[in-house]
Amino acid sequence: MIRTAADIIECCRYLATFTEEPGRTTRTFLSPPMRQVHEFLSEDMRAAGLDVFIDNVGNIFGRSPKNTRPRILIGSHLDTVPDAGAFDGILGVVMGIALAHRHPIDVIGFSEEEGVRFGIPFIGSRAYIGTLDLTSEISQAIRDYGLNPSSLPKYEPHDVYLEFHIEQGPLLESLNLPLAVVTAIISQRRVQLVFQGKANHAGTTPMSLRADALAAAAEWICIVERTAKECKGLVATVGRVQVEPNAGNVIPGKVALSLDVRHASDSIGEEATAKLLQCARQIAERRGVQTQIESLFSQPTVSMDEKLVATLTEVVGHQMTSGAGHDAMIVAERVPSAMMFLRSPGGISHHSDESVFVEDVAAALEVGSRAIQLLRESYA
Amino acid sequence: MIRTAADIIECCRYLATFTEEPGRTTRTFLSPPMRQVHEFLSEDMRAAGLDVFIDNVGNIFGRSPKNTRPRILIGSHLDTVPDAGAFDGILGVVMGIALAHRHPIDVIGFSEEEGVRFGIPFIGSRAYIGTLDLTSEISQAIRDYGLNPSSLPKYEPHDVYLEFHIEQGPLLESLNLPLAVVTAIISQRRVQLVFQGKANHAGTTPMSLRADALAAAAEWICIVERTAKECKGLVATVGRVQVEPNAGNVIPGKVALSLDVRHASDSIGEEATAKLLQCARQIAERRGVQTQIESLFSQPTVSMDEKLVATLTEVVGHQMTSGAGHDAMIVAERVPSAMMFLRSPGGISHHSDESVFVEDVAAALEVGSRAIQLLRESYA
Repeated sequence: MIRTAADIIECCRYLATFTEEPGRTTRTFLSPPMRQVHEFLSEDMRAAGLDVFIDNVGNIFGRSPKNTRPRILIGSHLDTVPDAGAFDGILGVVMGIALAHRHPIDVIGFSEEEGVRFGIPFIGSRAYIGTLDLTSEISQAIRDYGLNPSSLPKYEPHDVYLEFHIEQGPLLESLNLPLAVVTAIISQRRVQLVFQGKANHAGTTPMSLRADALAAAAEWICIVERTAKECKGLVATVGRVQVEPNAGNVIPGKVALSLDVRHASDSIGEEATAKLLQCARQIAERRGVQTQIESLFSQPTVSMDEKLVATLTEVVGHQMTSGAGHDAMIVAERVPSAMMFLRSPGGISHHSDESVFVEDVAAALEVGSRAIQLLRESYA
Repeated sequence: MIRTAADIIECCRYLATFTEEPGRTTRTFLSPPMRQVHEFLSEDMRAAGLDVFIDNVGNIFGRSPKNTRPRILIGSHLDTVPDAGAFDGILGVVMGIALAHRHPIDVIGFSEEEGVRFGIPFIGSRAYIGTLDLTSEISQAIRDYGLNPSSLPKYEPHDVYLEFHIEQGPLLESLNLPLAVVTAIISQRRVQLVFQGKANHAGTTPMSLRADALAAAAEWICIVERTAKECKGLVATVGRVQVEPNAGNVIPGKVALSLDVRHASDSIGEEATAKLLQCARQIAERRGVQTQIESLFSQPTVSMDEKLVATLTEVVGHQMTSGAGHDAMIVAERVPSAMMFLRSPGGISHHSDESVFVEDVAAALEVGSRAIQLLRESYA
C-alpha cells in the first residue's frame, strides 16, 4: 500500500530495479522491464480503488469510479534515460497513487517521455491527447510488446492535469525550498546531425588529405558550448555521438550527433539553433565533409494553466519555470495543466545519485491533498 | 587453384564475404567468420603442396616439405577493421599461396593485426615470434574458438620473412608506380583516454555548472588535429569515441577515446604524444573533469633487413617508408624481414572502396618469384 512519503520513496527505489541493464537503471519505451512496472503498478492502483487499463502505447491508466467534476488526472512517465536515477518520472505516478488513496482522482503513467529509444520523446502523453504520429519503428515496438498499434487510445479529456516531478536542477536547493509551482516549461528543440567524411587509414593518410568526420564534429561541439555560454539563459547540449567505423586506427568516416537547445524565449532558442546549424554547414564545407540535418522535435515555451497555477500558488508560494520538458507540456494542449517541482538534492538528475528528501515528498503529499480540495471547491 | 593475378583478386573478394556483419566486411580476431577463412585457405594451401596447421592463436601456417635454406616465409594477416576493404592483409596471404605453387616456401596468415577486438594489435605475429603476452580476454577468445591458450605456438625461426601488402596511402599512385620496397615502418603509439565528468540533465543544468566530458573531449580532439597539422610528417588520429550515457537530453558524463600518433622519428612521435596527453590533463583540470590515460601500445620505427631490402630493390627499384604498422615490424624482431607495397588506387584503404590493380598484382607476383630466386642464389 502506497500511502506515506516513506512508502513512495521505497516504491520508487524498488521500481528502479526493473531495468534493461543489470546494475543500473535503464528502462526505455516498451522494453521488457516495462512489463514488470505495469504489473507492479496495476496492483498498487487497484489497492487504491482504481480500475486499471493498459492502453495500446503502454500507458497505464487508473480510473477512479468516483471521479466527478472536476475530473482530476495526476501522473507522469514510466520510462528512464540510460543509467538513470530512481525518481525522474516514476515519482509523479507513485505520488498520484498515494493521493488516489485519499481522493477520487485518476492516475496515469505515460509509457514514454525521454525520447531515448527512438529519439522522439513524449510518445505516451501524445497518445493520451490524441496527437501521436506512429512511425513504423514505434508500431513495431508496440506489436513486439503484444499491443495493437492500429487501435490507439482515445481518452475523454480530464478537467485538470497535475504532475509532480523532481526539479532536476539546483535552484530549489539554492533557495532552501522544498517545492515550487511551475509557471511555464521553456522551449526546446532537438536536432540530429551527421558529418559524413571519408574513412581512411590513420597511418598512411597525411593530415592535409583527410576528411575526418570527427575532427569536424569536435570543432562544432566546441562552438555549441561557446554559443550557449555567451547567451544568458541558453543551454545547448550534444549528448549523443556515434562514430563510424569507430576503430583506433581508422579516420572517422561518419559521425552522428544530437543537439538539444533550450531557452525561455522561443525566438532566442530558434535563432541560436539556426546559427549552430549554419556553423555546422560552414565547418563541413571548409573541410570537404557533407552534413545531413534532421529536426527531430521542436517545442515552444508552454505556459501552465493560469487558474491552476494561482490555486497551487495559494498553497505553495514559490514559482519557477522548468528547463526540462515534461508530459504536462504536451497534455496542456488539451487539458488545463500544472506542475509541482520537488527539490533535487545536489541538483542531480539523469544519474544514479538522483534522490529526493522524504520531508519534501511528505510536503508534496500535503500540498497535493490541499490543492485537490481547493480545486473541488472552486469547481463546486 | 590460386595461380594468376586474377585468381588472387577473385579469391580476396570472395574471402571478404566471410564477415561478422552482413553487407560489409568486418572480421576480427577469432570471430565466427575466421573459421570459414581457415577452412577456405587450408584447402588452397594444400592445393599448393603445403602441410597446413592452425596454431593456438588462430594463425594458419602452410609448411612446404621442400623448403630448404634459406627457409622463406611469406604472409600477412587474416583479420580486418570494421567495414573494411577486400585486400588489406589477406592479399599478402593469398599472394604467398600463389608463390608457393611456384617455389618451395612456407606461408602464414596471422590471425590478428588490426587491434580491433581488444585494442591491442599484432596478436598473430607476436605469437609467431614467441612474444605474445596473453590477457584473460585473449585467452577466453581462444578458448571460445575451441583452441588451447595454454599451448602457445613455437615456431622454428625462418631465415627470411617477406610480406606483400597494399600501400594504403596515396604515394605510389601519385608517382605512377605499381610497387615499392619498404625500407622502414615508422613509429606509432596508441593510447586510450577517458574524460570523466558528471552526467546531468541537459535542460536544467546551467552551462556554468556543467562538467561535460564530451565538451572536454571535443576541445582536445581539435588540439590533436592542430598539433599534427603543425608538425611535418606527424599524423595523429582520434578514431574511436564512446560516450556515456549517450542520450540526447543528458550531459555526457564519460567519454573514452583512442589516440594514434605516428612519425618516422621515434622522439618526435613520443614528444608529440606526451604533449597531447599533457593538454588533455590541462583541459580536464580547467573544466573540473577527471582523466584516465592508458598506453596500449608503443612501437619504435623498425628498419627492414638491409640485405633483403637490397635484394628486392634490385628487382623493383623504388623505396619508401610505411606509415602503417605491419606484421613485418613484429616479425623483424626475430627474422630478417622485408615488405613490398602494391599501389592503392585512390589511396583508399580501411574502406569498402579499397582496391588493387590486376596488373600490379601480376607485377608483384613476378617480382616475388624473381626475389625468391635471388635469395636462394645468395644463400647457395
